[in-house]
Amino acid sequence: MSGNTFGQLFTVTSFGESHGVAIGCIIDGVPPCIPLSEIDIQPYVDKRRPGQSKYTTQRQESDTVQILSGVFDGRTTGAPIALMITNEDQRSKDYGDIKDKFRPGHADFTYFQKYGIRDFRGGGRSSARETSMRVAAGAVARRVLSEILGNHVVIRGAMVQMGPNLIDGDRWDWDEISNNHFFCPDPKAAIEWETYLDNIRKQGSSIGGVIEVTANGIPAGLGEPVFDRLDADIAKAMMCIPAVKGVEVGAGFATASYSGPDNADEMRVDENGQIVFLSNNAGGVLGGISSGQEIIVRFAVKPTSSIIIPRMTVNEKGENVEIVTKGRHDPCVGIRAVPIGEAMLALVLVDHLLRFRAQCGL
Amino acid sequence: MSGNTFGQLFTVTSFGESHGVAIGCIIDGVPPCIPLSEIDIQPYVDKRRPGQSKYTTQRQESDTVQILSGVFDGRTTGAPIALMITNEDQRSKDYGDIKDKFRPGHADFTYFQKYGIRDFRGGGRSSARETSMRVAAGAVARRVLSEILGNHVVIRGAMVQMGPNLIDGDRWDWDEISNNHFFCPDPKAAIEWETYLDNIRKQGSSIGGVIEVTANGIPAGLGEPVFDRLDADIAKAMMCIPAVKGVEVGAGFATASYSGPDNADEMRVDENGQIVFLSNNAGGVLGGISSGQEIIVRFAVKPTSSIIIPRMTVNEKGENVEIVTKGRHDPCVGIRAVPIGEAMLALVLVDHLLRFRAQCGL
Amino acid sequence: MSGNTFGQLFTVTSFGESHGVAIGCIIDGVPPCIPLSEIDIQPYVDKRRPGQSKYTTQRQESDTVQILSGVFDGRTTGAPIALMITNEDQRSKDYGDIKDKFRPGHADFTYFQKYGIRDFRGGGRSSARETSMRVAAGAVARRVLSEILGNHVVIRGAMVQMGPNLIDGDRWDWDEISNNHFFCPDPKAAIEWETYLDNIRKQGSSIGGVIEVTANGIPAGLGEPVFDRLDADIAKAMMCIPAVKGVEVGAGFATASYSGPDNADEMRVDENGQIVFLSNNAGGVLGGISSGQEIIVRFAVKPTSSIIIPRMTVNEKGENVEIVTKGRHDPCVGIRAVPIGEAMLALVLVDHLLRFRAQCGL
Amino acid sequence: MSGNTFGQLFTVTSFGESHGVAIGCIIDGVPPCIPLSEIDIQPYVDKRRPGQSKYTTQRQESDTVQILSGVFDGRTTGAPIALMITNEDQRSKDYGDIKDKFRPGHADFTYFQKYGIRDFRGGGRSSARETSMRVAAGAVARRVLSEILGNHVVIRGAMVQMGPNLIDGDRWDWDEISNNHFFCPDPKAAIEWETYLDNIRKQGSSIGGVIEVTANGIPAGLGEPVFDRLDADIAKAMMCIPAVKGVEVGAGFATASYSGPDNADEMRVDENGQIVFLSNNAGGVLGGISSGQEIIVRFAVKPTSSIIIPRMTVNEKGENVEIVTKGRHDPCVGIRAVPIGEAMLALVLVDHLLRFRAQCGL
Repeated sequence: MSGNTFGQLFTVTSFGESHGVAIGCIIDGVPPCIPLSEIDIQPYVDKRRPGQSKYTTQRQESDTVQILSGVFDGRTTGAPIALMITNEDQRSKDYGDIKDKFRPGHADFTYFQKYGIRDFRGGGRSSARETSMRVAAGAVARRVLSEILGNHVVIRGAMVQMGPNLIDGDRWDWDEISNNHFFCPDPKAAIEWETYLDNIRKQGSSIGGVIEVTANGIPAGLGEPVFDRLDADIAKAMMCIPAVKGVEVGAGFATASYSGPDNADEMRVDENGQIVFLSNNAGGVLGGISSGQEIIVRFAVKPTSSIIIPRMTVNEKGENVEIVTKGRHDPCVGIRAVPIGEAMLALVLVDHLLRFRAQCGL
Repeated sequence: MSGNTFGQLFTVTSFGESHGVAIGCIIDGVPPCIPLSEIDIQPYVDKRRPGQSKYTTQRQESDTVQILSGVFDGRTTGAPIALMITNEDQRSKDYGDIKDKFRPGHADFTYFQKYGIRDFRGGGRSSARETSMRVAAGAVARRVLSEILGNHVVIRGAMVQMGPNLIDGDRWDWDEISNNHFFCPDPKAAIEWETYLDNIRKQGSSIGGVIEVTANGIPAGLGEPVFDRLDADIAKAMMCIPAVKGVEVGAGFATASYSGPDNADEMRVDENGQIVFLSNNAGGVLGGISSGQEIIVRFAVKPTSSIIIPRMTVNEKGENVEIVTKGRHDPCVGIRAVPIGEAMLALVLVDHLLRFRAQCGL
Repeated sequence: MSGNTFGQLFTVTSFGESHGVAIGCIIDGVPPCIPLSEIDIQPYVDKRRPGQSKYTTQRQESDTVQILSGVFDGRTTGAPIALMITNEDQRSKDYGDIKDKFRPGHADFTYFQKYGIRDFRGGGRSSARETSMRVAAGAVARRVLSEILGNHVVIRGAMVQMGPNLIDGDRWDWDEISNNHFFCPDPKAAIEWETYLDNIRKQGSSIGGVIEVTANGIPAGLGEPVFDRLDADIAKAMMCIPAVKGVEVGAGFATASYSGPDNADEMRVDENGQIVFLSNNAGGVLGGISSGQEIIVRFAVKPTSSIIIPRMTVNEKGENVEIVTKGRHDPCVGIRAVPIGEAMLALVLVDHLLRFRAQCGL
Repeated sequence: MSGNTFGQLFTVTSFGESHGVAIGCIIDGVPPCIPLSEIDIQPYVDKRRPGQSKYTTQRQESDTVQILSGVFDGRTTGAPIALMITNEDQRSKDYGDIKDKFRPGHADFTYFQKYGIRDFRGGGRSSARETSMRVAAGAVARRVLSEILGNHVVIRGAMVQMGPNLIDGDRWDWDEISNNHFFCPDPKAAIEWETYLDNIRKQGSSIGGVIEVTANGIPAGLGEPVFDRLDADIAKAMMCIPAVKGVEVGAGFATASYSGPDNADEMRVDENGQIVFLSNNAGGVLGGISSGQEIIVRFAVKPTSSIIIPRMTVNEKGENVEIVTKGRHDPCVGIRAVPIGEAMLALVLVDHLLRFRAQCGL
């Protein structure tokens, strides 16, 4: 399997560069007879789409997703579903410093080292534009999850830290997510972040952040015991989002400081005979397998490397130079990572759901 | 692909339960003509082996690895290499509380939910005993890396935090690793940890920790741009180690607070015409591809769930009960995660090295 | 891995239905820096394109292949290459009997059984139209093979039997292939087949055939010993072409009647110190691995099931009915299987070449 | 995925050489709670075991299969099942001509070309001994098929041609299979074959054969439309059996001579409302998907290359030499290919059954 496919049974194979003809993907293994149309997909893609506020890159594209195959009479046929977005804003332009200099902290250098060739136009394959296809595929994954498990499956994400500024968890309100530009669940933090990020943006700088994504309504039993643990596949899913440098599940890094008794999520049978947990340090995964609790994952997004503040670097000729990356860039790429993180979690869950159905029936 | 295989080209397929006949693995895709014998493997397995100090489980087994196939006249033949450790200490015994109660924070519950059956003897497949095969396979991976890349490839790990106690990075000395029971690179911290962990152990409690693993001598170019990023595969590799709850690469979660200029690892051409980086926040991976810098990964290990302090739980019949896990358990499973983390990193690197050779030549 | 992907390292993932928006594929794992443009692909696709003579379906489409990604400045970048053909001739029409009756010998019935839904327009996913993408991907595979192995790699096919009529092997002339409508290497047989097939066509019937495909210039060493034998992967590659019912390598089924001494391809060292074989019953594969001899594979193509002569069948309601398949159909689908067989062989060979390079270096 | 693993969801990963410590395999993806013990496996392995008549190699080994993992209290746990046979008859001996000469028609040459090293003891990895693990894994596959589909699933094989001598299909009697040494369903042919093969054996020669394997009780819907067609995966499964040179499904190569009307398996609804087919040229597979009819596959096995009659060849030094292969060899390896073919068919079917369950439910 080559590196542009994600998943084992519900697979997403992706293609496309920032300034090529189109970007797209093929989703294979989709169960048949599931109602699906572009309307199920476009809203998610729009959440990730740039140019919607001053806090994201000003690239202007409608990012209209088209279903090319695999759907007939409004239902999936079991055949592969190809999705495509035609690139509109790909006119030739002056790529300036990017063309032959390596942005520090960027894939420019390693692509060139690996392949000996580099599509520098807008970052080529390394552009975050590629992630819109993950979001589109994630929307299909959500449809499948709901069809098989019911509509109580909810996968959603929030930005919980921007730069050094954390939200106050006590103010967490999912309804606030759509009331600000940051997918921030804490309305007070959201207001503070506006000023903070405006300042960053005006400096031509950038800043990192932390995203939390959760899934509710996932039954116990998804995941494999040894290598393909649910949390291991989630870790890969998040870490393969551009600019992500860390992933944690449940209490995550904090568990390093916990004692055994504190960490153990104790269990009780409630009055209805249901097994309940008294805490969720595990983040919904025990021994690599979902426990039926809420699945919780957080990931850290570094600041974008495309900044106006000059940095020292080298060029393709091996000379010492300085680089300034002009153009349209996100001051905080973490913001748009929220819908991507949701999509990646949906992809992991649907894949493991089908794997569960294969081995254990349903 | 089923869930007990790791890797794409250099694959490790694992089997075995804590108290079954044997544990073992099959390593496939090994390049031919590489000198290999049990002597290359056993020392690494011994590092992970329990019963070596009072800080690890007192289970007594020699854990002798046997090569069953794939080696002829002291060299690999290109055929799959099967490794096996016969279980010695598998006598029937009283499994006490474990037999029908679910340890909070343990795989007991989710295995039962998933499979409807559970080999409770020593935890069955969920036992950390399984990881000795990863260490053995990792030793073979090291041999291959050295053969192809040269002997300057060094993969090594250290415990950098025990419970809330961090090492002092300024005192880091790799030579100290073997001078204490904790793979601790800070001799002062190691002494303090002895007292600390002794106390934990005597309480019948347990504690978490953080491990750092690094790889030197890895060339630029390993990894794939989108899904199979080198750091994403590393994240999966570490998160699939039992009890791991978080993974970060390079500066990791700290980058969330960094500004773009601070995060960027600036580059220079040195006097020898070599490209050098002025920092390594990236941890050796840019855009999912190795940069030639040191690869740095850290992961958090939660405290073991097998503790003597009583916890509330339920049993297989769905009744509220209390559980006390007697027997031989590690007060800090993070310690033995050090050689496992090294092995997992070696497995990811050798797999991507072969993938690189396939696509780009070498 | 889902069922619409072919290959392990050089992978082709395909999508599209006969009367959908488009058909296409994503080729992943392509080595970088290989010159490539549509001009390298279109001629092969044109060989398979229908409507070129009265002996193939009269569907009229230009079948113009477009490269959507993975190529920059005329060279491959190592990123996935997406290819697409927009469907032109997909206007709504009367699908007649096909819409709710199952053609005997056709996928209509099994698709409906499997998926519970069926895109009946032109056969949907089961249309041979899908194979044009295999031919396009095969053209890319040829470019890679030539780039790595040199231009002496030649992969070509011929029709060696139409219905009960075999060619005379003594008259085999590769140059004749392009002189007739049948890819027939025997000019005398080609003339006879014209009359024969005209007759079949006028009856509204169809007929089967046998195709032979060979590869020259392939070095020894490609293939894996046990499951992923080169000949096993070739067998799969040919058997997954629509309508193929049998595959044989080298002397094939005839070897069942051979004695050991007769079957053994004896070897000699020639005057140049080169190892030569005195025969090639093996068809270039020994123990699953290429020997350096010419690779020879033959496959049988059944007659198309879409015929005007009425047949008994059932419909979706489970009623006994009669079916007549009007429309544009090939009287001998075997003809157009020649470029498909060549493409599939190229795909297997390039995949195993990259696998060889991964494990053994090159 | 490396080359020693078969299957996508129900995977078999194999190891071992003829004269190594042991041969074995790991079966992963096995559904849980299925009753299983060595008694379910050994009888099938015994059918393939050599030394049972003068018509198979005289190597004497008990070939006792041991389950190492994945079974608890007599039922599968969902964990990988490792099987092993310890090699008993591996004493060092004089390997004579095999040690440095290449047997014509044998893997000796290609292994050496590929790997640059060769375990010549008994053929090493290329020994047919490896196939006993396929038979063992096939026995587990049968158990799973029966558990999910019911006991009416029957997979069985027969030898239908030895050298140029075909059975008379009108005399086919499955009960005769166990009454002769050849798995021959035609009692008259079986008697004739005794004399025939005795003669071959006494000459120190060998002969080929054709095997037919069928599966009954397989529901419609297994298989994927494009690449992973059920018949394509069956073709690979049979062609990867050592010495197999051709595979056909249903009427196979004969369909090349069929007209469309003759080839079409017409369908009717019978008095019970069941869909029935009036013929089975398709061999139970339409469009790559099972139709519910009997699945029929035939494959040709070439004569073994290990013969006493001298042949011309070369040695490792590149010199012209003559070779005589003394020792224990089968005059007709096709005989023992019968249980192997059954096992491979069972493995393909169980894998596609689980794939079906994943995508379409069950």
